Amino acid sequence: MILLHNARYLVTCDPHDTVLENSSLVIHDTKIIDLGPAKEIKNRYPQAQLIDLTDQLVMPGLINLHTHLPMTLLRGVAEGVDLQGFLELVWAEEARIMDAEGTYIGARLGALESILSGTTTALDMYFHPAHNHRGAVEVGLRHVTGPVFFSFPGPDNLTWDQRMDLARAWPQTLSEIGGPYVPLALTPHCPLTVKPEHLRQIGELAIAQGAIITVHTSENVPENDDTIAAHGERPTHLLDVTGILDLTPVLAHGVHLNEAERLLIAAKGAHVAHCPGSNLKLASGAADLVQYREDGITVGLGSDGSSTSNDLDMFAVMRLAANLARLVRSDPAAITSTQIVRSATIDGATALGMADRIGSLEVGKEADVISLALNQPHLVPVHDPFTTIVFSAGRADVRHVFVSGEQLVDNRMPTKVSPEKIMGAALAHVQSQNL
Amino acid sequence: MILLHNARYLVTCDPHDTVLENSSLVIHDTKIIDLGPAKEIKNRYPQAQLIDLTDQLVMPGLINLHTHLPMTLLRGVAEGVDLQGFLELVWAEEARIMDAEGTYIGARLGALESILSGTTTALDMYFHPAHNHRGAVEVGLRHVTGPVFFSFPGPDNLTWDQRMDLARAWPQTLSEIGGPYVPLALTPHCPLTVKPEHLRQIGELAIAQGAIITVHTSENVPENDDTIAAHGERPTHLLDVTGILDLTPVLAHGVHLNEAERLLIAAKGAHVAHCPGSNLKLASGAADLVQYREDGITVGLGSDGSSTSNDLDMFAVMRLAANLARLVRSDPAAITSTQIVRSATIDGATALGMADRIGSLEVGKEADVISLALNQPHLVPVHDPFTTIVFSAGRADVRHVFVSGEQLVDNRMPTKVSPEKIMGAALAHVQSQNL
Repeated sequence: MILLHNARYLVTCDPHDTVLENSSLVIHDTKIIDLGPAKEIKNRYPQAQLIDLTDQLVMPGLINLHTHLPMTLLRGVAEGVDLQGFLELVWAEEARIMDAEGTYIGARLGALESILSGTTTALDMYFHPAHNHRGAVEVGLRHVTGPVFFSFPGPDNLTWDQRMDLARAWPQTLSEIGGPYVPLALTPHCPLTVKPEHLRQIGELAIAQGAIITVHTSENVPENDDTIAAHGERPTHLLDVTGILDLTPVLAHGVHLNEAERLLIAAKGAHVAHCPGSNLKLASGAADLVQYREDGITVGLGSDGSSTSNDLDMFAVMRLAANLARLVRSDPAAITSTQIVRSATIDGATALGMADRIGSLEVGKEADVISLALNQPHLVPVHDPFTTIVFSAGRADVRHVFVSGEQLVDNRMPTKVSPEKIMGAALAHVQSQNL
Repeated sequence: MILLHNARYLVTCDPHDTVLENSSLVIHDTKIIDLGPAKEIKNRYPQAQLIDLTDQLVMPGLINLHTHLPMTLLRGVAEGVDLQGFLELVWAEEARIMDAEGTYIGARLGALESILSGTTTALDMYFHPAHNHRGAVEVGLRHVTGPVFFSFPGPDNLTWDQRMDLARAWPQTLSEIGGPYVPLALTPHCPLTVKPEHLRQIGELAIAQGAIITVHTSENVPENDDTIAAHGERPTHLLDVTGILDLTPVLAHGVHLNEAERLLIAAKGAHVAHCPGSNLKLASGAADLVQYREDGITVGLGSDGSSTSNDLDMFAVMRLAANLARLVRSDPAAITSTQIVRSATIDGATALGMADRIGSLEVGKEADVISLALNQPHLVPVHDPFTTIVFSAGRADVRHVFVSGEQLVDNRMPTKVSPEKIMGAALAHVQSQNL
């Protein structure tokens, strides 16, 4: 039993956005079993292992709703290009260096970067999913991933039948690898690269398996145009007619959705993973986060891969999302810091179908918890903890990280893996391939 | 003599954007006296104090071209408001708590936050300039500031004659306080709040003193409208007819400049301090950085005060400027990372009239130097150091900071001041005023 003692703020992200001051949280096994005033809690659990969080802020772990973790190895290889230029450059490199081993090595680096920056859960789409998952789970990340689908061979050079075989075996693969609980997932690349008949097959398999689905959707205008040219319809419509939209998928990016599409997405209960860092860097456009929320769509936040954004820092994503919403709406009150923090926590959990397990600090939930050190010049003074999280804090303020009750980061140091070994393996792989 | 030994990259920001690998830099007294390959340099200066920067990136200190350092005390007090709403809230608090002592206390906190995040020079506009300067200089920051002007009493409640007296005495005040070399500066608030006749007087004094000028200009549309309503002309025209523009001022923000204004600013050799974090947070709009550069205007970067942006992190400013330019121009190649780093270093120095002294790592320049630790998961691998600086690095990666040859930060710890005392004084002042 672990007692996170005397946090200056416990930012719960519960339905009332409760913030407790000078309070503590108790973890037993994988779960949060109690929270309340520091003195009361300390008296109630005299046997617990106490971690003193005086002068720290405790909050739910951040949920990165769209990323490609192994692409850490490709950080910075594709600059000054749009999405199509990016894919051209990156797919060539992926075919060359992102084999099973490269994927595993990149996943470990991406998962390590994630946990050190306070991300406890990631929805990840990448080739060689078993190797990706094995790498991320070694670091301790709650890593939601599954087979990726293209209707053509793709950088991983698989036939459609091989992809479907991999997907049918995924429940078994996932249970063999282990790690913190995650749902099954299937990750078709996008309605341009996966033809409608194949999308339909994925949807049927998802129903049979109880898997969630994530898929790139309307990231930029050329993608919409190319999809219409290839399949006669816009991406969201293709997802609708193939049954995917009924499965409440996580639509990655969703930058260029028209009103009819937004209303359909809202009506179907599908979700959007808003990735402003990637969208701006590739000049894909600016999704109107506030409009999507007004339409009734649950929007989480994502970093995208670190070869587009070019890092996995969800604090940077939160701040950019908050700033971009103000710009897009010409309104300094377009969205509150509280709403942004919810997007990066409980809204992401909702999108993953995991709102009963993670995304907030509530008794009975799994203990995915992070703490931030507040006694630093850039975090003084705190007037409102949500504002501090979004507009002043950053990844390096993260001190402790727990996933499913296990401490993954202890005072900024990972507990399960060696950063030197993970960085060394990444550099060795990149250098051996002359990248 | 200090030898910064064996940096993986020396990003010089010289006229050729030279990057040296596995190289060293030598500081003697206040200046850079040599740089070159690590082995050669080590043999050449056997007596120097060696600081090992293996696995670090060395670059010029960042120049924050527009800020209000003491406003750290007001961080987070004005959320969800535009510029006018912000000023209404903040001026009231300033009149209440930002007396001479509050200014000094806030300046120390702001200067400490600055140096810890790699900023070595700041152009700062604030009340009680002597107290502001004294606080910043104690921390070691190269702190360019001077008297602030309003045509009405303002939060500091001074008459016009008192302001002019303060300004005439500023050279003496500055020399008494000491600190790293800075030019004299005069800081009229804006052409709305300083009437034309007063702007003219400031211009004359600036000529007599050889002072630089910085002034808020066209930060948002209501400011332009209010200026026309009050004085019959747009801000830039008022600066022109009063002679200010001929003195090549630093125009803070400059978000809403029309083409004629931009061409005039370029022709006069005036400069713009682009503050995207503040501009987005207050929904002031998005300055078109690329257009300004094409027009021939030298544009530096600023954080604005930490009650608008809400921090002083120039790494965040660089990344946002790079992303915003891509969005505004719908072009992923709108601006390179190299150009962004130059904006935050040598271009800022140019705007301050200090390009012969700071802003690049060149022999004969003052040693304003920072280093970043590269052996961290989010900075692996490095394909291009400029891209790493802009899109992957952050303030917490800063390890060592030198200003004018003096080491201000040693492995993330300030050398001249106690962070605990500075943060404690800030919290005590804020709490004593019931903020």
